[in-house]
Amino acid sequence: MTQKIEVVTSVLKANDAIAAENRKRMEAAGILALNITSAPGSGKTTLLEKSLPLLGDPERCAVLVGDLQTTRDAERLCNAGVRAVQINTGRGCHLDATQVTKGLDSLDLESLDYVVIENVGNMVCPAGFDLGEHKRVVLLSTPEGEDKVAKYPTLFQPADVILLTKVDLAEILEFSPETAKSDLKQINTRAPFIEVSSKTGQGIDDWIDWLKAVRAGLYPA
Amino acid sequence: MTQKIEVVTSVLKANDAIAAENRKRMEAAGILALNITSAPGSGKTTLLEKSLPLLGDPERCAVLVGDLQTTRDAERLCNAGVRAVQINTGRGCHLDATQVTKGLDSLDLESLDYVVIENVGNMVCPAGFDLGEHKRVVLLSTPEGEDKVAKYPTLFQPADVILLTKVDLAEILEFSPETAKSDLKQINTRAPFIEVSSKTGQGIDDWIDWLKAVRAGLYPA
Repeated sequence: MTQKIEVVTSVLKANDAIAAENRKRMEAAGILALNITSAPGSGKTTLLEKSLPLLGDPERCAVLVGDLQTTRDAERLCNAGVRAVQINTGRGCHLDATQVTKGLDSLDLESLDYVVIENVGNMVCPAGFDLGEHKRVVLLSTPEGEDKVAKYPTLFQPADVILLTKVDLAEILEFSPETAKSDLKQINTRAPFIEVSSKTGQGIDDWIDWLKAVRAGLYPA
Repeated sequence: MTQKIEVVTSVLKANDAIAAENRKRMEAAGILALNITSAPGSGKTTLLEKSLPLLGDPERCAVLVGDLQTTRDAERLCNAGVRAVQINTGRGCHLDATQVTKGLDSLDLESLDYVVIENVGNMVCPAGFDLGEHKRVVLLSTPEGEDKVAKYPTLFQPADVILLTKVDLAEILEFSPETAKSDLKQINTRAPFIEVSSKTGQGIDDWIDWLKAVRAGLYPA
């Protein structure tokens, strides 16, 4: 078991060095980079489809999208007018910094303001891997239940913003945002909590405003 | 990278040997063992709360429930009258056979007919680990979307039964069971597909009948 731990540690160290390079490359181009993580099916791709075109020129956004298989998500995002690069991980349960480097190689970074890295749908594995992002975005969807915050603290603790998605279903599901918020207070007091619905549009403006403010803070005019 | 692969292979081999021992122990006691996997929040615990008491004497069922943190699921299951043992994995994204061995040690196996292992909510990591189960149960919930079958084939391919949960929400979510079934046909033609709702009770009888039939096949009277 000691041997396993050593290998994992060295993999993480190598990953962090590559992530730092990714971040430096994107900063040189004035890009805000985001790493979006959540359970499968919580609405990452749908949120990006609906919101990125509202950020300004959709051509100045690119999404690197991680999935074990298929190019479905990249196709959906291309149809929404943003640039999208699909990264298939095979059996891998998270993206790593090297995969992101390859994705960045395929883009003209100077033409971009935002790079959104949509991680593999998974509440555990992506948490440990820096990809070179500036901010980490975590989604919780109402059908998953309020208890996920307490059950997956390693995901929610490092979040810079938490989006409660599918709030249009909160009533029918008897989901209590207050319970989720109360659990969040135990582990993360700094991340804003934004309730959104990609279906009704609720909260999408707040999410867009957050993105713009964070980029403006990183690159003051 | 070669080193990493070797370590993972030896861990898997060790796991498989321990899983085989777990299976042998449970067979000596006439137990049907199930390994239930799905995304977080797809309704594993709720399904077990609602259905296990219908299997006969709830005291003859035990659930080993894996979560990173908290004992919430075990408490819910105990309240439903079944025996429950919580296994906290810390940062671990799946249960392994050794953890199951420890869980079995805490139970009087002779007094049980069913052991249900509720894996950590995760569509990737649990797929590779035999825990000593006889059958693998995979849940897909309607809010996750039809595309999960194609995107997570390593989860659905080895399933012995697939339960579509939260079907009461299918209409409002415009979820198409036919699309999911059509994708399933590409990778798994042997697993029955049962549509269930723990809220309305739809399909619960079919699931119970499946469980009873499988145990009867394993231990003919």
